[in-house]
Amino acid sequence: MSDDITAYMEGLAAKARAASRVMASASTERKNAALTKAAALIRERAGEILEINAGDLSVAKAKGQDAAFLDRMALSPDRMEGIAKALEDIAALPDPVGKSIAKWSRPNGLEIERVRTPIGVIAVIYESRPNVTVDAAAIAVKAGNAVILRGGSECIKTSKALFDCFHDALEVAGLPDGAAQFVETPDRAAVGALLSGLGGRIDLVIPRGGKSLVARVQSEARVPVLSHLDGICHVYVDRDADLKKAVEIVVNSKMRRTGVCGAAETLLIDQAIAEAVWPKLASALRKKGCELRGDEALQAIDPEIASASEEDFHTEYLAPILSVALVDGVGGAIAHIAKYSSSHTESIVTENAETAARFLNEVDSAIVMHNASTQFADGGEFGLGAEIGIATGRLHARGPAGVEELTTYKNVVRGTGQVRP
Amino acid sequence: MSDDITAYMEGLAAKARAASRVMASASTERKNAALTKAAALIRERAGEILEINAGDLSVAKAKGQDAAFLDRMALSPDRMEGIAKALEDIAALPDPVGKSIAKWSRPNGLEIERVRTPIGVIAVIYESRPNVTVDAAAIAVKAGNAVILRGGSECIKTSKALFDCFHDALEVAGLPDGAAQFVETPDRAAVGALLSGLGGRIDLVIPRGGKSLVARVQSEARVPVLSHLDGICHVYVDRDADLKKAVEIVVNSKMRRTGVCGAAETLLIDQAIAEAVWPKLASALRKKGCELRGDEALQAIDPEIASASEEDFHTEYLAPILSVALVDGVGGAIAHIAKYSSSHTESIVTENAETAARFLNEVDSAIVMHNASTQFADGGEFGLGAEIGIATGRLHARGPAGVEELTTYKNVVRGTGQVRP
Repeated sequence: MSDDITAYMEGLAAKARAASRVMASASTERKNAALTKAAALIRERAGEILEINAGDLSVAKAKGQDAAFLDRMALSPDRMEGIAKALEDIAALPDPVGKSIAKWSRPNGLEIERVRTPIGVIAVIYESRPNVTVDAAAIAVKAGNAVILRGGSECIKTSKALFDCFHDALEVAGLPDGAAQFVETPDRAAVGALLSGLGGRIDLVIPRGGKSLVARVQSEARVPVLSHLDGICHVYVDRDADLKKAVEIVVNSKMRRTGVCGAAETLLIDQAIAEAVWPKLASALRKKGCELRGDEALQAIDPEIASASEEDFHTEYLAPILSVALVDGVGGAIAHIAKYSSSHTESIVTENAETAARFLNEVDSAIVMHNASTQFADGGEFGLGAEIGIATGRLHARGPAGVEELTTYKNVVRGTGQVRP
Repeated sequence: MSDDITAYMEGLAAKARAASRVMASASTERKNAALTKAAALIRERAGEILEINAGDLSVAKAKGQDAAFLDRMALSPDRMEGIAKALEDIAALPDPVGKSIAKWSRPNGLEIERVRTPIGVIAVIYESRPNVTVDAAAIAVKAGNAVILRGGSECIKTSKALFDCFHDALEVAGLPDGAAQFVETPDRAAVGALLSGLGGRIDLVIPRGGKSLVARVQSEARVPVLSHLDGICHVYVDRDADLKKAVEIVVNSKMRRTGVCGAAETLLIDQAIAEAVWPKLASALRKKGCELRGDEALQAIDPEIASASEEDFHTEYLAPILSVALVDGVGGAIAHIAKYSSSHTESIVTENAETAARFLNEVDSAIVMHNASTQFADGGEFGLGAEIGIATGRLHARGPAGVEELTTYKNVVRGTGQVRP
């Protein structure tokens, strides 16, 4: 059985590799035509897809999946329209392939240019969010890649129905059907096969989903991974902060949506102003229903506050809980972040330009912010148009990754007969 | 013992990680001061280093190492001066850290900028070329990284003596000595430890050396690797080639130096002109002492030629041997390259701009060339100033990698109190 899966996955990968060669030279028009046609087909087939989704939902419900899980996999006419619209938005984005990113000439007359090219074959492994099926496929294909999609088994039928729209649209647009493929088996060995790289045929793996999925992909993958495991984001309120801004930014960073990776999990306060600002910060957070846990220094100021353990500062709550520590100015904040951060997003609130510059320079996270909410850590908010994920690794792409981040480059050298002495 | 090694390597890695934080904000002046001071110390200590090298050489000779091996590890006053000069050249290069690579603003007033930052901690694993010790250290440090150096055991004393110059120069310049560290044990378990990533403390591994080293690193590393395993480079002579240029480029690509990764290993000739051009190409190559192996189609034209097997087209000879195949125009060349190339460097010889554009667009290698010798595949020839290696992977950096390719970026977001609706 596992041999069968390997053979099946190798077949997909070989087909993807062949298609990636065609996709690398596919015109922008053709790629966009596929995306807009897929949007049209999703609208056309909305009724039957919703029926299939209802079937997936009732099976998942019978299996005892919780409400949050069911909500993530549920489609509605509105959500269907959102999926179709997202495809059209990606079609409207500029095509990065062929874009010149650097150009120079050498004394011997050679002209050297770095030109964006697709990465090649990308595997996207996701959980039971059917919209990821077409969203990820569209971003990958727009950047000229071939993509292999492996969705969560609970809504595999819904995902397949959405995928079929994408697949049929590729055909209408005259693009190879290996440009986007859907893993039809729910067997988990399929994920292992993708993570092995299938003999060098997978160039990049992108996990989309919960922590256990990302952790498995990061630890097993034999190929590069674009992902983030944790988003332990910090807001630091400096002694030169504007208190009104600080309250707004802290409350928004933590409470706007607590379940997103850019949500703040730890608040750092300059000890020089802690006594003065804490009452306002605490009351604004508590009013929003946020549970607060403080370190010893904060407890000395606010004896009511629950105690934050060492473990708290290493925790991504994804819930209305905030750990709070007092630090010795911006240097203390930088040191705390270096120790506890997951290198996702950190923000400083200060009116002091020099202090801000030091924080932005010395904090080594994918995203560093000044006087802004950490919840802006998002491809859409960055203006990337669409986001395949947020990367906290150090190579290739950091932070929100969109269409352009799914490209690489090649070096084009133009000569007139030069040979090397 | 292996536990001891792990503990030792973890110590190096922790020290490197701490130093990398300081290095990320180190001034250009300080980094350059370290490099020029290291050059001065190498000149000062040249006599004793040459003596140490003589000792390493006699041990290696007694162990039966061959002449090529001994030559690679041998220093001379000239080579010492070359090493010192290379350090000064790297000091003279622009500092990439802090460079803005993109900047835009959002409708809500957020200013977003992508700014180059060091990668972090880089491990360089190399064989018995002592010059790599300071060369690699200098490139890594110039880009603001901390580096851990693991050199070949046969010349570990020479490498250590060179490293000491670098280490002492860091101290004089006021940079942390964790910025460059040398693995003093010859135990191979040290390499395994580096490849494990040492608990997330190694961000990138760069192997410098022969194929078996690179293969081991690529297969065992649990962290990103910047490397190339093979350089199976192709030259394609098109029907619209200028014959004089073709002869010069083919001979130079193959024979200038046969042992470099950018040397051509396969010649592809458009079958439309094969009969006309083969005699000139063959005679020029044979005159230089090149052994020729042809496919069946070429054998039909030249019955004298040895037969090239399927295996030949998969072989990086690194020797004066060239496999030759006839192909059906540029499309045939692209298909052959897609099948056999190691994605390093490929060159087309043609006067037809449209054919050249198709080749440059459709061939998916790190470097693609038009009317130029593949032997230009080199960081120095690209004008990068110094080269840490040539990458044939698809992510982060492709082709020659220099100081700038040892950086990544972070996203800096500047606001005035924005919160996300």
